[in-house]
Amino acid sequence: MVSWKDFDSLSSYETLQSLKNHVDVKKELSGENGAERVRKYNCEMAAGLNYNYASKEVDEVVLKALQELSDEAQLTEKFEELYNGAIINTGENRLVLHHLARNQLGKDVVVDGVNKREFYVSQQKKAADFANKVHNGEIVNENGEPFTTVVQIGIGGSDLGPRALYIALENWAKANQTFKMEARFISNVDPDDAAAVLNATDLAHALFIVVSKSGTTLETLTNEQFVKDALIQAGLDPSKHMLAVTSETSPLAKSPDYLTAVFMDDYIGGRYSSVSAVGGMVLSLAFGPEVFAQILEGMAKEDQLATNKNILENPDLLDALIGVYERNVQGYPVTAVLPYSQALARFPAHLQQCDMESNGKSVNRFGQPIHYVTGPVIFGEPGTNGQHSFYQLLHQGTDIISLQFVGFKNSQIGKDVNIENSTSQQKLNANVAAQIVAFACGKEDTNQNKNFEGGRPSSIIIGEQLTPAALGALLAHFENKIMFQGFVWNLNSFDQEGVQLGKVLAKKVLSGNSDGALKVYADLLNI
Amino acid sequence: MVSWKDFDSLSSYETLQSLKNHVDVKKELSGENGAERVRKYNCEMAAGLNYNYASKEVDEVVLKALQELSDEAQLTEKFEELYNGAIINTGENRLVLHHLARNQLGKDVVVDGVNKREFYVSQQKKAADFANKVHNGEIVNENGEPFTTVVQIGIGGSDLGPRALYIALENWAKANQTFKMEARFISNVDPDDAAAVLNATDLAHALFIVVSKSGTTLETLTNEQFVKDALIQAGLDPSKHMLAVTSETSPLAKSPDYLTAVFMDDYIGGRYSSVSAVGGMVLSLAFGPEVFAQILEGMAKEDQLATNKNILENPDLLDALIGVYERNVQGYPVTAVLPYSQALARFPAHLQQCDMESNGKSVNRFGQPIHYVTGPVIFGEPGTNGQHSFYQLLHQGTDIISLQFVGFKNSQIGKDVNIENSTSQQKLNANVAAQIVAFACGKEDTNQNKNFEGGRPSSIIIGEQLTPAALGALLAHFENKIMFQGFVWNLNSFDQEGVQLGKVLAKKVLSGNSDGALKVYADLLNI
Repeated sequence: MVSWKDFDSLSSYETLQSLKNHVDVKKELSGENGAERVRKYNCEMAAGLNYNYASKEVDEVVLKALQELSDEAQLTEKFEELYNGAIINTGENRLVLHHLARNQLGKDVVVDGVNKREFYVSQQKKAADFANKVHNGEIVNENGEPFTTVVQIGIGGSDLGPRALYIALENWAKANQTFKMEARFISNVDPDDAAAVLNATDLAHALFIVVSKSGTTLETLTNEQFVKDALIQAGLDPSKHMLAVTSETSPLAKSPDYLTAVFMDDYIGGRYSSVSAVGGMVLSLAFGPEVFAQILEGMAKEDQLATNKNILENPDLLDALIGVYERNVQGYPVTAVLPYSQALARFPAHLQQCDMESNGKSVNRFGQPIHYVTGPVIFGEPGTNGQHSFYQLLHQGTDIISLQFVGFKNSQIGKDVNIENSTSQQKLNANVAAQIVAFACGKEDTNQNKNFEGGRPSSIIIGEQLTPAALGALLAHFENKIMFQGFVWNLNSFDQEGVQLGKVLAKKVLSGNSDGALKVYADLLNI
Repeated sequence: MVSWKDFDSLSSYETLQSLKNHVDVKKELSGENGAERVRKYNCEMAAGLNYNYASKEVDEVVLKALQELSDEAQLTEKFEELYNGAIINTGENRLVLHHLARNQLGKDVVVDGVNKREFYVSQQKKAADFANKVHNGEIVNENGEPFTTVVQIGIGGSDLGPRALYIALENWAKANQTFKMEARFISNVDPDDAAAVLNATDLAHALFIVVSKSGTTLETLTNEQFVKDALIQAGLDPSKHMLAVTSETSPLAKSPDYLTAVFMDDYIGGRYSSVSAVGGMVLSLAFGPEVFAQILEGMAKEDQLATNKNILENPDLLDALIGVYERNVQGYPVTAVLPYSQALARFPAHLQQCDMESNGKSVNRFGQPIHYVTGPVIFGEPGTNGQHSFYQLLHQGTDIISLQFVGFKNSQIGKDVNIENSTSQQKLNANVAAQIVAFACGKEDTNQNKNFEGGRPSSIIIGEQLTPAALGALLAHFENKIMFQGFVWNLNSFDQEGVQLGKVLAKKVLSGNSDGALKVYADLLNI
């Protein structure tokens, strides 16, 4: 049995605190030793990716302390308990089974007589079958015409992950002849969101996926009605255009309003549902089930690496531990995720949810207050764009921000242009290499305005190309990283009680029962 | 003459430090006093906007100290010097004249015999004339057909601001019959960015605007060539499809490669150039010059408010000072910008550049190290989406994040749906009202996991509708806020030396002259 203890009650916590500012990354990375360090501080990931941490503030001493932390906190043992079906989500008394959707790790988990792995796989197969029928013309619109666009109606976990993955692979799929249908997304309850997407959509040839686990998400049901009204106004039959992704017990599950319903359950949280039916339906429609299967394959291989007890052979765990060192020892408040890949434009927004909603908490998994900082703020934009924007603060601001770069040797589309003896892809990658060294090593200048102190740590994940498998490995890496950090901080990373109060107060406003400051705010906003 | 002093050398700095945790916003906002506070702590902005700061940690004592700081640091006097042509950008020995592009404030500023106000207005007029000729069919493609799409090629300030403003007004313009042309944007040197935009663009009917002040920006020139190659491959003549926005001395200025060139100068920095020719050309083409003029009008009116010495009648200054209090007294490291408007989806990314590139600095305007924190990290996504994502950390995380909400009484398109007795717009606004109170007041629960401590401060800017004038006022508000904060911190907010080192090292990699760690990173990235 594993033992759940607060981070600051561990002896490795004390060891780590004694290692504040232990490594001068500027010094470590300079000269020929620096070259050797970059070659050495590298950890293989799945799908040909590599996690390189040579520019992080670690050395053999820090890494040893992090290994001790991992062992003392039983991090891989906790992971094993999780994927084998322990009740890890203590607040909601639930299992946490998103790894089973990747169909690889651990034992079969049976809940209420249902083999959960088989359940997730069966729903992926149901989504695949539906997608294949749409693609081969078995499922068509009222006039017997093919569907050309799919619109996902969801919010939070039903939106950010699937959207980020779609954007990540859209151009790859087009270049590799696996592109099947355009996908669009409606999420915000702002009526302009749905109206704008519908104005730009050929309704007669569009499928709409309503995604809500409970079947009661306010934004999603409102937007569903918005879409239904538009379909009816266009003389179309909504039940011939809409499908549902929901739980088996939700009001949407057996409704005749949908072409089909594909099921999710309580054991895969929204922010970890990108490759459950939530993302599986829309991605299978957009790119075909084979592409979706390749994402899963990449995730499964990365999950397998996450079981390694040796942190130097477990990139997800190592990244997590370095992040803990940066947060709880070095005191950095923010992590920037900086992909040098335009296709990953919305990937940081998805990680922002995964990370901040999982670990933005102040009580431990038993509901007791803790006395150390937990999840950092996460933000990011693609490079090189960010270089011409917020990098100024990252280089010369008064706070040190932890950095996570991502880069690929090859582009997705393959079109390029050679200017001044280099391609755009080479310029892109020269920039990320340059930034890592600039942040770490800085440059002295007698003009203090042009002086760079350096000592700003970063890691980089490098892949051959952003393929479906590489994307899957990347996603699983960050999901597992966040999980391991939650274990260190002794949090329940799988509930989100912090979003409830706002919902309650919003209902109060809408029912006309607000008073005091809330009522005046509502008045000012013309509600 | 104004006097430039470090923040911590002012007597008001000491006063403010003594006011740490002076206000319990939870207490202030509760009960009927709370209602009165929301009505009172409200400051009128231009274009019908209001800045409401009732949920910020201020009271009469803190506001008095902030007024003293404003007076002692001569903040409005410094603003006056700026728009009247003082050399505020000390590092680069330059004037800072973006307010003159709004054609309202201050004296005429003459540089090298050129009246700068007249210069900026003349370039806006040149852009307007060109746009009108495109719209009325005087300027057409090789086959005499109209242009239907405009693609902006730029990066950083030549991209983020114009892109954010275009997205903000696209649906408004379509709903108000002022929409003229689709706009798209190419920015990243990642070749997939240009390739994807070009794949989705009808080249024969597209205009391309190359935006680079120096005419030497690597990303932009590379992407320009990418576009030229595509045009030539499509059998089109690039010089019939491209125009330039650049400085009069740049290689692009008098080239026969362009239909026309509109000019910018050194006195409007990239991140403040949204309403110079940089944004003026693309926005005039997309929406017509009249809409662009309405943005300018909203900015000019907000600028006028920013001259008020009384901080309670100067929303830009007040917001700046409250931000300083939160950063330097309360110690909050991050500010989240949270617009409850899908149209403002990319507005936070633009503010992220404006703010972090302006004030992410560690030396004062004389190049001397300072000993207090400066610009915070800025990030944000639209609500209600964010509520289902990172708000968990904002409510229950271990760090307090400063919050800035934006909301509008009415939607832009006007289509809506009534579910459970409220429209989507009402649900949207009920949510932002609820969030403000939830963050400030929290809610006690014996289950610590469901306990909300409250005391998390926010402000909100409320408008009637996101019109061109309201958008202009909003943009000027934040630009001026950032300027005032730079004055308090005694920074040069108008240079960006922190982006230079990366450029130098990237060139080193591309020329094959890298060594040590840089060379190994370059090898790993296959350069």
